[in-house]
Amino acid sequence: MFILVNLKAYPCDPIEVATAARDVAEASGARIAVSPQAADLARVAETGAETWAQHVSPNEHGSHTGSTLAEAAADNGAEGTLVNHSEKRLKLADIDGSVRAAERAGLETIVCGNNPAQIGAAAALGPDAVAVEPPALIGGDVSVATADPGIVEDAVAAAEAVDDDVDLFCGAGVSTGEDVAAAGDLGAAGVLLASGVAKADDPEAVLEDLVSGL
Amino acid sequence: MFILVNLKAYPCDPIEVATAARDVAEASGARIAVSPQAADLARVAETGAETWAQHVSPNEHGSHTGSTLAEAAADNGAEGTLVNHSEKRLKLADIDGSVRAAERAGLETIVCGNNPAQIGAAAALGPDAVAVEPPALIGGDVSVATADPGIVEDAVAAAEAVDDDVDLFCGAGVSTGEDVAAAGDLGAAGVLLASGVAKADDPEAVLEDLVSGL
Amino acid sequence: MFILVNLKAYPCDPIEVATAARDVAEASGARIAVSPQAADLARVAETGAETWAQHVSPNEHGSHTGSTLAEAAADNGAEGTLVNHSEKRLKLADIDGSVRAAERAGLETIVCGNNPAQIGAAAALGPDAVAVEPPALIGGDVSVATADPGIVEDAVAAAEAVDDDVDLFCGAGVSTGEDVAAAGDLGAAGVLLASGVAKADDPEAVLEDLVSGL
Amino acid sequence: MFILVNLKAYPCDPIEVATAARDVAEASGARIAVSPQAADLARVAETGAETWAQHVSPNEHGSHTGSTLAEAAADNGAEGTLVNHSEKRLKLADIDGSVRAAERAGLETIVCGNNPAQIGAAAALGPDAVAVEPPALIGGDVSVATADPGIVEDAVAAAEAVDDDVDLFCGAGVSTGEDVAAAGDLGAAGVLLASGVAKADDPEAVLEDLVSGL
Repeated sequence: MFILVNLKAYPCDPIEVATAARDVAEASGARIAVSPQAADLARVAETGAETWAQHVSPNEHGSHTGSTLAEAAADNGAEGTLVNHSEKRLKLADIDGSVRAAERAGLETIVCGNNPAQIGAAAALGPDAVAVEPPALIGGDVSVATADPGIVEDAVAAAEAVDDDVDLFCGAGVSTGEDVAAAGDLGAAGVLLASGVAKADDPEAVLEDLVSGL
Repeated sequence: MFILVNLKAYPCDPIEVATAARDVAEASGARIAVSPQAADLARVAETGAETWAQHVSPNEHGSHTGSTLAEAAADNGAEGTLVNHSEKRLKLADIDGSVRAAERAGLETIVCGNNPAQIGAAAALGPDAVAVEPPALIGGDVSVATADPGIVEDAVAAAEAVDDDVDLFCGAGVSTGEDVAAAGDLGAAGVLLASGVAKADDPEAVLEDLVSGL
Repeated sequence: MFILVNLKAYPCDPIEVATAARDVAEASGARIAVSPQAADLARVAETGAETWAQHVSPNEHGSHTGSTLAEAAADNGAEGTLVNHSEKRLKLADIDGSVRAAERAGLETIVCGNNPAQIGAAAALGPDAVAVEPPALIGGDVSVATADPGIVEDAVAAAEAVDDDVDLFCGAGVSTGEDVAAAGDLGAAGVLLASGVAKADDPEAVLEDLVSGL
Repeated sequence: MFILVNLKAYPCDPIEVATAARDVAEASGARIAVSPQAADLARVAETGAETWAQHVSPNEHGSHTGSTLAEAAADNGAEGTLVNHSEKRLKLADIDGSVRAAERAGLETIVCGNNPAQIGAAAALGPDAVAVEPPALIGGDVSVATADPGIVEDAVAAAEAVDDDVDLFCGAGVSTGEDVAAAGDLGAAGVLLASGVAKADDPEAVLEDLVSGL
């Protein structure tokens, strides 16, 4: 199981979370990555934590202002990128472009969608993984461990129907080690978390709990 | 073969083209539809020609200003709608929403994409048809009848790999009856045209040529 | 005072509201217009009511799919258009383009903004009028007649500081004749309404109340 | 005169250009800043060159993925930001939001527009400066020193008519020291450059020429 912590634009200290992620990953052997704002990529990567971008532009080098090229993310230490997060919805052609750009720059990709149809579409674009963010689980009060298992299983099935090489991540409803284990049991290869870690008083303790059942 | 004429925002008389489409469809038995701007839907539908919207909103009834609901298109005579045309690229979640909205309003759907990966993604969203607009054919100087047949065949294969019930339209490179026949031979169920008909001095003559080989 | 009723994408009968607007305008001498979805413009204009578009494209005639040109709105009976409504926010360059397009097609323009700074910016683009939609008044529970008068007065001042020929409309907080009068007293040349009329059981009665104090 | 070099998404070495900018600024006393992609801000700022963002989000801290907050830009060394560059056009409300966000984070702001009307609108939003990017000068073949002086003078007048405290930058048509001087003579407080410096074989030599007439 791969645990990816999206720092969004939270008022957290990205270095503190990244340091905790690095330490828990090293101690547990679990794969944990941190995804900060583009401007923080270099400083986060310097901690030694696995670092992911939250988004990369579909563009190639050229006259583009205000974008983050996949190459710029990689040059500053990113090893992968989210694409089409529910807070950064992209045009279909741009999801395609961003996945191609990430491949070109050597970044892994996780493309998000919020129902099985969109997950199937995302899988058709050939990313490394897709992440389902079911509206029923967004917001954090419902746990994937107790929710209707069909929500995740249907997304796994939709992805596999299109491309059985693509991994599925559970993008919502995960806040404890029990949830991580439940997501894995439903067929997920990883989970996306955000405020549960990024806004925690003690991110390291939360991460230790998350990997406890692996 | 279904021939869909996109009037875009051309300075043509939509009623003249619609009347020609109706007459040629009746005389030939071919299926021909005309897709005007939203504001012209009602007047075009009144001609008796099959009428399609160029786009419908992913929204349901509610507080949305400046959109065209699928219901409003249907109420004004539309029988189908294009979605995600290359000049009206949508977010993946909105393509999904527009296809669902069209279904709800009883409209047929053709979702556009410009390469096999995007066509596979479009097919995963469950529209009635997908249309490939290969960049190599956009602009009109290269004909589908003489271009690399792989351009269309790969799109047909990408759509079928995801959903073998979805039809494929050829969205570029068609201007003559020979092109329509060639597209059909490559596996297309229909073609999209635009300026070749809409900006013609004699739209009826062009349409007669287009259906001549069916 | 000009009363503009935005029908948004409400599940109302646009013809019923337009007929009521026409009748109350004729009986009272007040200026009342109805702004339906683009697809409904022609049918609404046929009632004889003054008809406005909710949005027009910044584009000129050409290869644009899924847009509503100012010319198409005018051809179908529109006499004016809203621009940059809070539910259809546009890029600055596109507000400029839409105002220019509307001028070209002979449409009046009201550009919306939601604070004095944006109202000043909107006025700098040379529309016929600007409409302030103060967040404090959106939603309908607070009336312009009882709210802080500064909300409207500051917008009037911001518009006049840039261009003292531009009219200011009050775009929220109006649901009764008393509110219309209060908006006028604060310097507004008109008001925008939506659900209060469009979703009323008896739109004609609501409109009669709105014009009662003029 | 302030010289701001936009590195866009060019395949240049941002550190090399920043080092040249720092050295020429120190040697000449001229104010020169470099504006890299968000991911490169920290490394560019470490050179000691004045560093600007190409764009900042209108958002505050919170659940926003894939954006660059003004605070994140400032934390990584930015001292100012471009807003609404012609390659990153924003909605009017978002220009307002980005200028407010930049103020909050202590960043200077230059808001771009491409004609006098848009420059007036930009000035109404209260940035530190506005930059006119006249379409006639974009592309680089026409120099501001030889073009119709009215292009810049009209923009200066439009900005001053709205707010006589706002500075005007010339955002196109500048590639030599003569152009910098000409822009200053027309009333500009600074200039924006891009490929002329960023893609030069010897950025330092180009910068030395640019400041030679100051």
